[in-house]
Order: sequence, then C-alpha cells, then structure tokens
Amino acid sequence: MALAPNMRLLGNLCKNACKVSSARFSVSSPAAGNVSVVTDDKGIATVSMDKGPVNSLNTELIQELTSAIATTSNSAKGIVLTSSLPSVFCAGLEITEMYQPEQAKLEVFWGSLQDLWIELYSCKVPTGAAIIGHSPAGGCLLAMCCDYRTMVGPKFTIGLNETQLGIVAPFWFKDTMVNTIGQRQTELALMLGTLFNPKQALSIGMVDQVVDNREECLAATYKIVSQLSKIPSEARHVSKMLMRQPTLDSLTSNKQEDIEYFAKFIQQPIIQKPMGMYLEALKAKSKKK
Amino acid sequence: MALAPNMRLLGNLCKNACKVSSARFSVSSPAAGNVSVVTDDKGIATVSMDKGPVNSLNTELIQELTSAIATTSNSAKGIVLTSSLPSVFCAGLEITEMYQPEQAKLEVFWGSLQDLWIELYSCKVPTGAAIIGHSPAGGCLLAMCCDYRTMVGPKFTIGLNETQLGIVAPFWFKDTMVNTIGQRQTELALMLGTLFNPKQALSIGMVDQVVDNREECLAATYKIVSQLSKIPSEARHVSKMLMRQPTLDSLTSNKQEDIEYFAKFIQQPIIQKPMGMYLEALKAKSKKK
Amino acid sequence: MALAPNMRLLGNLCKNACKVSSARFSVSSPAAGNVSVVTDDKGIATVSMDKGPVNSLNTELIQELTSAIATTSNSAKGIVLTSSLPSVFCAGLEITEMYQPEQAKLEVFWGSLQDLWIELYSCKVPTGAAIIGHSPAGGCLLAMCCDYRTMVGPKFTIGLNETQLGIVAPFWFKDTMVNTIGQRQTELALMLGTLFNPKQALSIGMVDQVVDNREECLAATYKIVSQLSKIPSEARHVSKMLMRQPTLDSLTSNKQEDIEYFAKFIQQPIIQKPMGMYLEALKAKSKKK
Repeated sequence: MALAPNMRLLGNLCKNACKVSSARFSVSSPAAGNVSVVTDDKGIATVSMDKGPVNSLNTELIQELTSAIATTSNSAKGIVLTSSLPSVFCAGLEITEMYQPEQAKLEVFWGSLQDLWIELYSCKVPTGAAIIGHSPAGGCLLAMCCDYRTMVGPKFTIGLNETQLGIVAPFWFKDTMVNTIGQRQTELALMLGTLFNPKQALSIGMVDQVVDNREECLAATYKIVSQLSKIPSEARHVSKMLMRQPTLDSLTSNKQEDIEYFAKFIQQPIIQKPMGMYLEALKAKSKKK
Repeated sequence: MALAPNMRLLGNLCKNACKVSSARFSVSSPAAGNVSVVTDDKGIATVSMDKGPVNSLNTELIQELTSAIATTSNSAKGIVLTSSLPSVFCAGLEITEMYQPEQAKLEVFWGSLQDLWIELYSCKVPTGAAIIGHSPAGGCLLAMCCDYRTMVGPKFTIGLNETQLGIVAPFWFKDTMVNTIGQRQTELALMLGTLFNPKQALSIGMVDQVVDNREECLAATYKIVSQLSKIPSEARHVSKMLMRQPTLDSLTSNKQEDIEYFAKFIQQPIIQKPMGMYLEALKAKSKKK
Repeated sequence: MALAPNMRLLGNLCKNACKVSSARFSVSSPAAGNVSVVTDDKGIATVSMDKGPVNSLNTELIQELTSAIATTSNSAKGIVLTSSLPSVFCAGLEITEMYQPEQAKLEVFWGSLQDLWIELYSCKVPTGAAIIGHSPAGGCLLAMCCDYRTMVGPKFTIGLNETQLGIVAPFWFKDTMVNTIGQRQTELALMLGTLFNPKQALSIGMVDQVVDNREECLAATYKIVSQLSKIPSEARHVSKMLMRQPTLDSLTSNKQEDIEYFAKFIQQPIIQKPMGMYLEALKAKSKKK
C-alpha cells in the first residue's frame, strides 16, 4: 500500500490540528491515489494533493481533484484544501500537457481545468486553502478559489507568474485574482508575473492569514472552515454565489470558445519554443543531480 | 409632548458639536415623531432616528425617514444622519414586518425600503452617517448609503449579518457593500455575517473615521458634510451619480421583480420558522426582565 | 537653441539615474519643442513634458505628447514619463482652450485628449510616471495611465480636483481612477476634489512609491520600467490589455458622443462664468508680480 505512510502523515497532522480521535476518521482515497480525503467527526474534510514532486496539475490530478471536491461537498460540511508534500502546495499546470500536444488531449486537459475551477469556485460547502508551501500559477488559482487562505511564512511564494514564462493567464484566472486582490494589484502582478512572499501576499489580501508552520496552517484553516460551516448553509452559499455567479457565468457560457482560444494560443511556435527550452533545462538539471 | 426631552438632547448635542446658537435652529418633526430634523444656521441638517428601543425599520419609520431626507435635501445644504438613542444607530429591519405577513403589507414594506435606499444613496446634498451605536443589517445599509461614515468606538458593531439569521442580503445591499469595502471583504463578510468592531470596520474601509464618543462623532460627521457642502453642488452631485448610477439602475429597473422575489423568499417555511423561534426567544427574554 | 539648458539637465538627470554613458544617448525633440525624448543604451526612453510654466495641456502639447509616446513605443523598450520643470509634473488641461471656445477648436482639443489617453493607457511598452512635482487634474490622469507611479514627497499634490472648479471629471478619467484606487476612494476623492499629498496618495494606492527627490524619482521609475521591459513583451502587453481593454472600449466606442457631451457641458454659462472669474484672478495675480 504505497499510500500508507502518507495517510499516516495526514492522520497525524489532522489529529494535531483538529484534535479529533483518529478512530472516527473516514478515509477515502480515489483509485489513482493523487488525492486523499480525510473527514473528521465534525464533518470537516481535508482534501490533500499528493502527487510528488510538486503536485503539477496534469489531466489526471485535475480530474481526481474535481471528483474529490464534488464528492466531498455532498458528504462533508467543509473542505480544507492542502498538499501532502513538504514544501509545495501546488506548482500549477503540468507543462508537458501543453508541449507539442495532441489536439484532442489538449482540449480534454483544458476542459478539465475549467471544470475544476467551476467546481471549486462555486463549492457549496465552505472551503479554505492551507497553503503549506509554494503556490505559483495554477496553484495560486486553486488557493484563490477557496473562501479563505492561510499561508506558511516566510519562505514560500504565491502568485500568477505566467508572464515570466511568456504565457498569459486566462481571463478567468485574472477575474479570480481581481475578485481577491482588486484591479490595480492584479494589473501590476500580472504584468510582472509577481510571486509574492507571504508578508506581501497578506498586505495585498492575496492570503488572509500567515502562520509559522504546517500544523498552524492546517489548524487555522480548519478553524475558519469550521466557523463558516456553522452559518446556515443555504444563506451562506446563496451569499457566496451572489458574489461569484457573474464571474462563473463568464466562463460557463464560453467554455468551448475558451478551449479553442487556449489550444490555438498555446500551440503557437512563439509559445512552444520557450516551453521546449524550459523543459530541456529541467531535464539537464535533473540529470546533474 | 413626548418628544421634548429628546429634542432638547439633540439641541444640546448639536449646540456642542456644531457651535451654533440654538436661537437659529429650525426644528421640524414629522407627525409620527420617529424622525427629527434639526437644521442649523449654516444649513446643515441633523436627521435623527428616534424610535426606541432600537430604531428598527418598520414601514412607518422607513417612510418617515425617506420623507425627511427628501424634504431636507430640498431645504438644507447637507445631512448628518444619526440616532437619538444612546447605544443604537439602527438595528435594521423590523422582523415582525416579515413574520407571517399579509402579502400586500409585505410588498409595501419592501417597496418602501427600496425607496429609502434610492433616496439616500442618490441624495443630492452631502450625507454623513454619525454611527453613535450598533449598526447591524439594515442599519449598516443606511450608513453605507451616506457619503462618509464616522463611528463611535470601541464597543459597537457594524455589518451585514443577515446570514447569521439564515437570511440573504438583497443584491442591492451587497452592491452597496462592494462599492464601500470591495469585492473580497464583502464576500467574506457576507458569508460569515460578520459584525465588525469599529477598529476592524476602519481597517477595511467600512467606516472612514473612529472617534471616542457621541459628541465627537456628530462633530466629525458635521465637519465633513460641511466641507462637502462647500464644493460646487452641481459638480459634486454629478460626480456622485457618475459613481453610483449603475448601482442605482440595477434596482430601479427591477423594483417590482425584487419585491416579488423578496416576498416569495421570506415566506418560505425554512425562513419563517427560525424567525418565529427568534421572536419567541425575544418575547421570553423581555418577560424575564 | 532655447531647449539646450533643459536638454543638458535631462541628460544629467538621466546619466545619474540610469548610469549610462551620455555618448550613447539618442535625443530627439519634436519640432515644437514642448516634449523631449531621450533614449538610453538600454532602450529605456525618458519622455519629458517641457512647456513652462506648468505643462498645461493645450491642444499642441497634447498632440506632441501623443506623437512622442506613439513613436517611442515603436523604438524603445519602455517609457519614463516625466517633466522638465522644477516643481510641476503637469497642471492639467489648459483652461483657455475651454473658455469661450470656437466649437471646432474645442472638438479638436477634446478629441486630441481622448487620443492621448488611449495611446498612453494602452501603450505597448511599459510606462512609469516619475511625478517630480504637482500633478492635479489632467496631470493626475496622465500619471494614472502609466503602469507604475513614483512621486517626490512631501510637498507636492496629486488628484482629480475638478469639482473644486465646478467641473466634473469625464467618465474615462473616473474609470481610470477606479482602476487605480478602487470605487470608494474614487467616490470620496471626486466629490471633494481631493488633492492628496504623497503620503496619502501612497496609502490609497494612487502612487506606488514615494521618494525624496527628483533624482530618486527618475531612478526608481526607471528601475521598474526596466524590470517590466524584461518580461516577455507579448505576454506582458496582452496581460495589460486583459485588464484595460473594457475601460478603453467604453471610450473608443463612444468618442464622438463624448466630444459632443463635453462641448455642450463646458459651454454652459454656469461652467463658463466661474472659469472666466478664475482666469481674471490668474491675470490679476500675474500682474501684481
């Protein structure tokens, strides 16, 4: 059972953080094992990405995550979204999915990412991101989709750094960021591709709280999710949708168009070439080790 | 004359705050006496809600307030909106107006509230809220409609706490809040039904200034209203409408639809039942005293 | 050559700030000489308004500035927008262009200003405003169009103070301000016609950085423009347009309507009369000197 150590780790973390007896845990792991879900006796679920080395979002992880969130939001009262890895929350989209892709696979990849965003951004139970490590690009997006963000300081970073790789954040990444940190900070951050340290992230509202370590991060996120779960759920979720529906609608009414735009954009030589160089550099680096 | 002591109080407050001679006061009190208006010799009017114990907004108070604001904005140069009560600015909507209501009365109630919001949010003279006490729900809405907010610290609270009672703030409450504190803070505050203390309210921009007591609150609000009243009035009001017209339009073009939505929403058993329990609890509490 | 001393000044400033050898400067000055452009060997251009006494934006300066920005954005990698004057960045629109105007000239004036805004707000190379002095009204607009703003403290001021003169900021001035400092701060600032000192401007996000003197201001602005110029340019500019296109569209799709609205608005006796009095006062003041 390859997942056992990890499950134990999660169990321990959650035991410490949530002060619940492990006997009452309901643990479920989807087949592929990239995402684990642990629900405590108060009904709060911890959904952990566990795809080493950096939780890169390939089609598989994206679909498992969407499925885990959809299932959990029907059974649990709230979700703490986190990572089982020691220093990475989520490194963003898996570049190999976008490099010299088959058209059909590329479209499935992008459509799956759209579905994950829709599922998480409109989730009917409260969600909190326990950002226990680095969270660039798509990792930042996942965090921003949650109702609350707690981050471990001071060494990790978070942000939509797409421009640094020559890529443009899709409009719904941008909208999610504007809804989180406002127009001006988004504009500058997107142009520079800024990766914020936790202190900076807190000052512009990219995260809501900065803590010292993983345990505190899980505990603080658990606390706010628990608090949100005690608000009458219908009123709470209708209020959330009152805020987010227009942003959701702008993608849900244009999913196919957005897929086609992305597929065309990403396959341009001007985008593919630096991506190839970047992948070569990664390979060279890993061979040296 | 039941209002006399209160009028004296207001007179004194305003004398202290505004340093005008009482001889020049023009005092007018609408028939029902829930709202008083005192205009000083500089043309700044203090409009005070005075319906004990908590200035709950029933149809009567709502209509008197709308009328007072409409009349005053034609005769005065600016309005300080406040409360004659010692520790409450305004406690929000009167729940008995919404519990087991007659359909016709309910529709008048909601239409009157719409009119009050429209009148105050678009008021052609400068408006300042002197928040001398608690200001939850509808009280927070009234404050947010003004051009400036001063609040007495540190013990009172302000916020749209509807979700805590299982209710959802109407979209125009939400819009007014977004225009005041931005998208992200509104989202979290609406989901949690947060009541902010003055320090928190100041830090997120829900109020513009926090002072130590009632006199300072009235004086500080008076000062900014006076300053605004010296700006060329046409330019000042056109600028205000440039900012607020789209928000106003979203309700004015949908008033009847909004009334019907509200009436249907509020009469659901899932909403009526907790309301009934809440009212029972209030009765039991008041009998014990 | 009247411009010589000024060119030398600019050269010196840029030499100090940018640490480039003057030998590599490419200096070009448009015919009329109200705007100078100095591009260093890194490809960063300093575009300086130089129309004493206060860089008031008449049709001539507006058109020269638009032309300088358009040309420079095709040849340089980034633009530092500043002023050659000792204590004024730009004093805003030239009032004599709007007082008792010929209809045709007035329309050209306003259309030219629209074009300047469109050019600068959508500029394809990074732009930074080095606000070395006062920056009211139209000066504030120019600064807000840039990607970053550095201001010299503590004695200068910046803001859209139109209401103080009985004028209303056009909707696209307002939109630019909302995109910079948000809805609430814009609302209050427009109503009051607030001129912020640098510290206030920094606290609300009107400027991004405050420094002690002109040299530091040019250096700090140069630094961020240089940083932005190193981001892949296509991705950086597409990201910028993702943020700004809707705001740009609202004017570009209504240019003629906006010209007509402005021409009608500004020629009202209620607007012309105070403008005439203001100009008389200026004349009297300058005679006394």
